[in-house]
Formats: sequence, C-alpha cells, structure tokens
Amino acid sequence: MSTTEQPPAQAGDESYVIGIDYGTLSGRAVVVRVSDGVELGSAVLDYPHAVMDTVLAATGAVLPPEWALQVPADYVAVLKSAVPAAIAAAGIDPALVIGVGTDFTACTMVPVLADGTPLNELPEYADRPHAYVKLWKHHAAQRQADRINELAASRGESWLPRYGGLISSEWEFAKGLQLLEEDPELYNRMDHWVEAADWIVWQLTGNYVRNACTAGYKGILQDGAYPSEEFLAALNPAFAQFANEKVAHEIGRLGASAGTLSMEAAAWTGLPEGIAVAVGNVDAHVTAPAAQAVEPGQMVAIMGTSTCQVMNSDHLAEVPGMCGVVDGGIVSGLYGYEAGQSGVGDIFAWYVANQVPPRCHEAAKDAGLSVHQYLTELVRDQPVGGHGLVALDWHSGNRSVLVDHQLSGLVLGATLTTRPEEIYRALLEATAFGARTIVETFNASGVPVTEFIVAGGLLRNSFLMQTYSDILRMPISTIASDQGPALGSAIHAAVAAGAYADVRAAGKAMGKLNRNVYTPNEESATAYDTLFAEYSLLHDYFGRGANDVMHRLKALRRDALAPGALAPVAAGAEAVPA
Amino acid sequence: MSTTEQPPAQAGDESYVIGIDYGTLSGRAVVVRVSDGVELGSAVLDYPHAVMDTVLAATGAVLPPEWALQVPADYVAVLKSAVPAAIAAAGIDPALVIGVGTDFTACTMVPVLADGTPLNELPEYADRPHAYVKLWKHHAAQRQADRINELAASRGESWLPRYGGLISSEWEFAKGLQLLEEDPELYNRMDHWVEAADWIVWQLTGNYVRNACTAGYKGILQDGAYPSEEFLAALNPAFAQFANEKVAHEIGRLGASAGTLSMEAAAWTGLPEGIAVAVGNVDAHVTAPAAQAVEPGQMVAIMGTSTCQVMNSDHLAEVPGMCGVVDGGIVSGLYGYEAGQSGVGDIFAWYVANQVPPRCHEAAKDAGLSVHQYLTELVRDQPVGGHGLVALDWHSGNRSVLVDHQLSGLVLGATLTTRPEEIYRALLEATAFGARTIVETFNASGVPVTEFIVAGGLLRNSFLMQTYSDILRMPISTIASDQGPALGSAIHAAVAAGAYADVRAAGKAMGKLNRNVYTPNEESATAYDTLFAEYSLLHDYFGRGANDVMHRLKALRRDALAPGALAPVAAGAEAVPA
Repeated sequence: MSTTEQPPAQAGDESYVIGIDYGTLSGRAVVVRVSDGVELGSAVLDYPHAVMDTVLAATGAVLPPEWALQVPADYVAVLKSAVPAAIAAAGIDPALVIGVGTDFTACTMVPVLADGTPLNELPEYADRPHAYVKLWKHHAAQRQADRINELAASRGESWLPRYGGLISSEWEFAKGLQLLEEDPELYNRMDHWVEAADWIVWQLTGNYVRNACTAGYKGILQDGAYPSEEFLAALNPAFAQFANEKVAHEIGRLGASAGTLSMEAAAWTGLPEGIAVAVGNVDAHVTAPAAQAVEPGQMVAIMGTSTCQVMNSDHLAEVPGMCGVVDGGIVSGLYGYEAGQSGVGDIFAWYVANQVPPRCHEAAKDAGLSVHQYLTELVRDQPVGGHGLVALDWHSGNRSVLVDHQLSGLVLGATLTTRPEEIYRALLEATAFGARTIVETFNASGVPVTEFIVAGGLLRNSFLMQTYSDILRMPISTIASDQGPALGSAIHAAVAAGAYADVRAAGKAMGKLNRNVYTPNEESATAYDTLFAEYSLLHDYFGRGANDVMHRLKALRRDALAPGALAPVAAGAEAVPA
Repeated sequence: MSTTEQPPAQAGDESYVIGIDYGTLSGRAVVVRVSDGVELGSAVLDYPHAVMDTVLAATGAVLPPEWALQVPADYVAVLKSAVPAAIAAAGIDPALVIGVGTDFTACTMVPVLADGTPLNELPEYADRPHAYVKLWKHHAAQRQADRINELAASRGESWLPRYGGLISSEWEFAKGLQLLEEDPELYNRMDHWVEAADWIVWQLTGNYVRNACTAGYKGILQDGAYPSEEFLAALNPAFAQFANEKVAHEIGRLGASAGTLSMEAAAWTGLPEGIAVAVGNVDAHVTAPAAQAVEPGQMVAIMGTSTCQVMNSDHLAEVPGMCGVVDGGIVSGLYGYEAGQSGVGDIFAWYVANQVPPRCHEAAKDAGLSVHQYLTELVRDQPVGGHGLVALDWHSGNRSVLVDHQLSGLVLGATLTTRPEEIYRALLEATAFGARTIVETFNASGVPVTEFIVAGGLLRNSFLMQTYSDILRMPISTIASDQGPALGSAIHAAVAAGAYADVRAAGKAMGKLNRNVYTPNEESATAYDTLFAEYSLLHDYFGRGANDVMHRLKALRRDALAPGALAPVAAGAEAVPA
C-alpha cells in the first residue's frame, strides 16, 4: 500500500469527505475538503488477488480463456487499510468526516446470499469459479450475449435501442445467464446478483441499495422495468425469474444517501459511525462532476486500462453502439450517455510487457524513464504516417461502437525495418481512432460532442493527449486531479451528507478542470485524417461482418484449448467461408 | 571469419574443387572432393560492410526507405580470406584443386566501367548511393517496376507471361531504370550493369561472361532477345539502349567454364593459376543438384533469410506469379522454374530482435538455447489454432505469387493474453502458408510439385519443418549438407573442369539428400487447413486489390520521410478511397 502525504489541513470548522475508487487492480481512498474539493491525502491498496484470469488462486485450477475473476474480501481490505492510511496522510481529525462515497468498475458482479455473503466465502464453493466476482472484463459470456441480442432484436424489445442495439457480454444479464447455464447449483443458491458497486455500500451500511446508474446501464432497467419474464424464459426457461428474483431491488438515486456507516464499518475505517454513505456509483460516471463536466455535450473520457466516455444530454437519442443511455444515469435531470473502449492502457501495457526487446528496457532504465516514456520519446518527433503502420485497438474486444468482444487486435504494415517504438505509436494512435469513431457516431446521432475532457492516468502522457487532439480535431481539456474518480466519489459523499443541494452544485465547487490544454495541429490533423480513413476501412471490414476471421479464430482457439479436445478444429472449420 | 575443420583428406589421386557461396551477409568457401562430394573444410567471412540499408557507410548519409546496398570489395575479401582458410581447414594440397565455382544472391547488381571497376571505387562517386551494389532486397525501384509491368501488359509483350505476368522491382531492368532516373550522370558513366554473380567470376578470370540463369530470370532474356528498344524508349527515351549497351553480353551455359583462374586471383586465393572457373550462378539454382533434385516435379526450397523455390519441368507453362521460367535456367535441357518468398528467416530474425521481451532472452540464455529455439520450445506443443492468430508473411514484400514488394506484414488476433512465442509461431506458420500458396499455384498451372525438398539454414528447425509438412500435406526431404549452395557451386566447378559430363551426372555423384525426414500429421494438417483458409482470405483481400492499404501506407511513409517534406500526406491522401 502506498500513501500520499499533503500539508496538514488548516485548523477551523472545515469538514471532510472520503471518496473511495475501486479500480481494476487496486482501491484508492482520498480525503477531500468539502468547501473547495482540495485533496488532502490518499492511500492505495493493490488487491491481494489482483485479477484471476489464468488460474483460480484457491485451487490453482486453470481458467478457460476470457475469464476474469476477483475476490470480494479484497474490496473490504481497502476499507480496512487505505481509508485509515489516507486519513493519517491527510493529517485530519476523522471526527470531521461527514460522509463516504464510493465508485466501482462495472459491470462487476458478486453472487451473494440474502445477507450479502459472497458465495466464494462458503467453504463448499471456494473451488467453484462461478462463485467468485465476475470482473467487468470477464468476456466468457459472449455466447449468452449473442443469444440475448438475437432474441431481443427478433422480438423488437423496446429497451434494445437504449443500448445502441447491442447488449454487452460484460453486463448483468449475459453474465447471469452464463452462471445459470454453467453452474446451475450455484445459480439456485444465489439470492442476489449484485453489482460490486452496491455490494461495497452494503458492507459499509448494512443496507442493500441498488444504484440507478448500473441498474440502468448494466442491468437493463429502462422506464422502470426489466426485460420481461417471457423474454427471459425464451432464453432459458430456468432464467424466467432472473430479473424478479436475483436482480430487482430498491433503486437509489445518484448522490442520495444509501444509509449510514455501520458500527462494524466504522471500526474498519476509523470513521465516525452514523455518517452518510452515498449510493454506489461507477468510476467513469462519478468522474464527470469531478471534471466540472456535467453539462450537455461535454464528453468526459476516463482513460486508464480501458476508456469510458460519459456525456449528458437534455434529450433522448439512439446512438448506434453506445453502451447505454439512462435517465439520471450520471446526474439527475439529464440523460446520461455512456460509450467505451474496452482496451486502451491495457493494450499499451501488454505491448510493453510482451513485445518490447531488451535494448529498449535497458535504455529506458539508463535514461531514468519508464519504458512507456522511453518509447514515446523515441517516436514522438516522427512525422505522421512515417511508421507506415495502422492498428486496430481491439486486443480486449470492442465496446463501442461495435459491441463485440470476440474481435481482436491487428497490426498492419510492419516491415523488416519497423522499430518497436513505431508499433507502440501505432497502438496509441489506434485508440485515438477508436475514440474518434465514437465521437463521430454521437455527432451523427443528434447528440453532438462539443467538448472533450480527459480524466484518468493516461492524461499524463502529453504525446498521447496531443495525438488525441490532432486525431479528434478538438481541443483536449484535462481534469486537474490525479484522482478523478475518488474526487467524484467524495463529491457524491458531500451531497449525500447534505453539504450541497445536488451533484451539479457540488461539482461546481469541488471539481477541477484545466481547459484546452492541447489544441490540434492542423498539419498533423490532416495527415491523421488519411490514417483514420485506413483505420475506418479495416474497422468496418473486420468489425461489421465482411470478414469474421477474428470470431472464427477465437472459436478455433476455444475449441483447441478445451480440455480433452479431440478434433480441435471441427467447429472452426464449419465457420470458414467456402 | 570462422572455419570448420574436418579430418585430413585421404592420400591418393583425389582431386578437389572449391565452391564459394555469396550470401546476403557473408561469403562461404568449401573444399569438396570431386569423386563423392564429401566436404572437407570450409570457412566463412562476414562482409565488412554487411548490408547498408539505413546509412551509407562512406559518408554516414541516411538512405531512403527500402534501399539495400553492398560494397563489391567485400566480395573480393572473401576470395582472399575464406578460400585459403577453407583449404587450410581441409588440410589438402591446393595443387590438387582443379576448379572453382561460385554462386551469388540475385538479382544483385554492380554498376561498372568497361574494365569491371565498380563505380563506387572511383573517388568522385564514393558518396553517391547509386554507385554501390544494389542488393537483391533493394526494394526502392517499385515505381519503375510498376511502369514496366503496366507498359508490358498494355503492349502484350511476349516475355511477360514467362515471369508470371509481373516483373519484380528486384530485377535488372527496374533497378537500372531507377539508376537512370535518379542519377543520370552515373548511369551514363556506367559501361555495364553486371550481376554480382558474373562480376565475381570476372574478378577470378579477367573475363566477363553473363550466366544464362540470371540473364533469363532477372535480365528478361527470353528466346534469345531482351525487351525491345521501342519498349524501353516508351518507358523513358534515355533508356532505349539500356539492353543493348548496358546489359547484353556473351552468355555462358550453366556448368560451362567461364575461363581460367588469373594470376592475380591465384595469388588472392592460393589456388593454382589456370584452373577452371565455372560460369556464375545463383545460390538457389545451384543448390538443386546438391540436393539431387533436378528431375521434373522436384521442388527445392532454399530456406534462409528468404526462400527461393526452384523446380525443373520438361515443358513450358505459365504459372501466375512465378519469378520466371528459363530454358536451361537450372540445368541444360529442362525448363527451370523459380518462385520465391522474399522474407522468411529475415522475418523471424526481425521478430526476435524487435518484438521479444527481456524475460524470453534471459530464459533462453539460462537454458543454453537461442531465442529462436526457446520460443519454439515454449509453443511447439500448443494445439494448432491455440494461439488464435493468423499472420501474413509480407514484412519484406511478396515475391510469389503476388510479386508485390509494396505489401507488408500483418498480425491479426492478438489479445491481452497473447504471448510472444505465440506470435512467433504464427509467423512461422505464415511462411508455410506462403509456401503452400506457391505449391498450389504450380499444381493448378500444369506443373505439379511431386516432391518438396528443403535446403538452407532453416532446415535445422525441426518444428518448422514439421509445420511445413503438415501445412503442405507433403513429406519433407532435406539436403544432407549444411552448405548446399557451396556444394552446388563445387559441383558446377567439377563439371567446368571436365570431371563429369554434365551437372545432372555430377549432382548424382556429389549431391546429398535425406528422403522424407518429416511426414504430415493428419490431425494437425486438418487443423491447418482451417487456418490456411483464413490466410488465403486475407492474402487475397490485401494482396489482390480489394484493399490496397499496404500500398497506401508505404506511399504515405515515403512522403512523410522524404527530405524536406512539407505536406507529408498530400500524395497518400489522394490514394485513399472515398
């Protein structure tokens, strides 16, 4: 665990809130001053079990491809260690803390008993992969998602256009159906299929309140209703009561209080029992007020391992391939739109870990730079197009606008003189082309993007930010906090505690933004237009059905690696065009 | 320089020949016994200037993309050092050597004065890139090749089908036209545009004799004639006399004597003055008799940095995308067919040097393996398709069957769990798919491939050989010599010296083959059929005009990197489809 110390807080009547951001690999707590949003101290805990995507830690059993699990106790460990450490780092009196807010990755799902006990904590289920948390990037429910989409399209379900026409394999229903079909005993034992965003609030308060954000974006709650029993029964008769029995629950509005801090949680955290705990929320959505970006047309891109784009609008539209539009999904009173790119920083990290030779690692070390920084320095002055490459940023699938996690990465144009840093740059550019594809789709759907605001760890890479500005042909503003989601959670805590009337008002007082830090270079932008045309051609060819080779290769891989596969290619062979 | 010692030769009346193989990076001399082809000693010299593909050594000036130059004096250095060292290693009396044979990369071109002096050796031209040898893999004459092909097709030139319908940018006419158009002063100063294969024989004998092999395959000499003056004038009026003045010369039949060893060359090599020197030849073609593979239907693949496939037939056919068919091009009396893959071992080497992380290098070192061996060991037991990848082996362009050096590499299917060794394997497989594409094209053109015989350094990788066998669905035989081209040159030396009646007879006595070392595994072969279908789909999409993105990216790169480029993408932008 690491902490960041700040100068001691001023004496006086100031009050404080705690924002806790649950990311993919760690949980971060930040102490924030209610009056002006100043961040006084923070602490991070890496989850002890990190992400289980190859083996189940409890048994060492190999997981199938595309699984990604977590351990709920790791989330509680953050409460026990990062919160007290952040308070200590801030040097404040914990008695002055008036509220706690949290945000979480989503859709990250915990199967629990009626009292909230996760199934993996029952000794008899500790060796069952389906008893664990299915992290957002668990992509093994694609077959279920495909069936949901086909059935919904054929029945003309009214909720489908609210999700750009496609439900993701990452979401509650696809993952729940996978659980039912692959481990029905566990499914039947499960009382609630709970977003981790709500499970952690449950641990803090003792109350289960379902937040409006994930219920809408991930749980297909639209106009007050879930998908019907008939629809669910048509997917699988045993799934008919899924919404009624496992998912439906009291909804909490964003910024509202979900309850107060329990005695047990007060002991874990060192905070006063009985202070307000905000309704759960999602890392991306909570960041919008932290970046003072909750007005219509302000798109906030939270760029980390993946990117989530959120934007408000005063009207309802159908944007093809968006993740969803939810009334009050970001702030009450506006329609909240969400889109995303399922791999961004993850792709860069994979490349550095797997495709960069020793000489670059050594030179980076000698120069006192990270490998990312070193590769960027090597290639930042190359003219646009000088590497002769174009890449598709689909190593973790495509969330928007194709909503297809069976897609995969592509690098095209390598020659025998291509250098590692050139491919790295092509991958950076590919993610910017992916962002442009999303922005153009919103623009074309009557929900224009008028500002582009970046939050998240990747805003520290100035070359990447300039590249985004050039490729998007838009100025880039950046959040003026290193801890945007945690600050956003703190803003929600302040609202839940009654310090502000609503999230918009709290964001105005506590949020932080640097405007137009990067502006497009016209010459580069023109050159990038050419590369973007190439990206788009490949995007559509591989992403819209002209050549489903990526699907077929993933099917072939699944079959080849399946335990006891006797004829590893039979299924794949059928799918190959004549 | 390294040498290989062998047990001392037996006493007696044995006679010996020297075979010298000029490769891309080094020259190798081998001492061979005439009676049975036993190799008694060898030595290798790495060219001091290697390949100049980024800067010109004499000045440090940066070369444009896709250039590849060499220094002729490096070839003479091989005569001075590797030949005496090989004799010493063999422990024979040099007085018993009766002939010298050579083979060379092709098409590798030397611009010379009337006496054979290379232009780069004139002090006033030492700083001019066009004064140097254009190595086979100099790919900067593609625009000239395109014009030659368009004009030849529009005029219906009779020689065009002999080259599969396309002349390569690697060959004499495209490279010569580039020289004319980019440095006309040098072009006018040049008296002969000479294959390095013939230039080295000129250095040995003092005579310039043009070998039938490169004249036919690379020099467009068909049925006794070169492309006409009218044709050449239509390309460029100043090019009208190119064939007559710079290229045409007395032709020497393969296996014939080009003359005798001069006093000067005898002093360089330590060999007797006046012994026979065989007509020049090409590394791939000379290997066929060394592998006892000169009968119709026996395809010999010489697999090294690139692969060259050669095969004889008793009849003339038109094979789309072959490099060429030449009467007597491999052995007199049969039609010699040539095809090729311009990047094979080069691609694997590029990958290991540029895309393999430190942990693999370290683990290979710890295991006492090369990185190539280590990656192979990691992935050899993975079921076919288990990596989820497919690659196109075009990092150095495509020689057959697309004949397009503006193509480039592609890797498709990477995810965040893809490992470096998996991409390595996908590249190995891609080259085997490229070989299958060639074999299938020959089969479909009435020149069936009945045997597949591998020579060259890559035959040492048993996993690669098994992969070829599975993908080709053919047994793989391998040459039983580590020095196939040098042995083939020695065979030609023996014929030139009169020890055998012809190359076929000498090959029977001196060549060496291990038959059917690898046979296809049916289950793997079936699985690979599926992957080959994917490869073929991408091959045709990117290689046959449906999406010329690779061409456009290379054009964009050339423009972006051109000195003083002001608007680096203007030209590329025009080429992008609307």
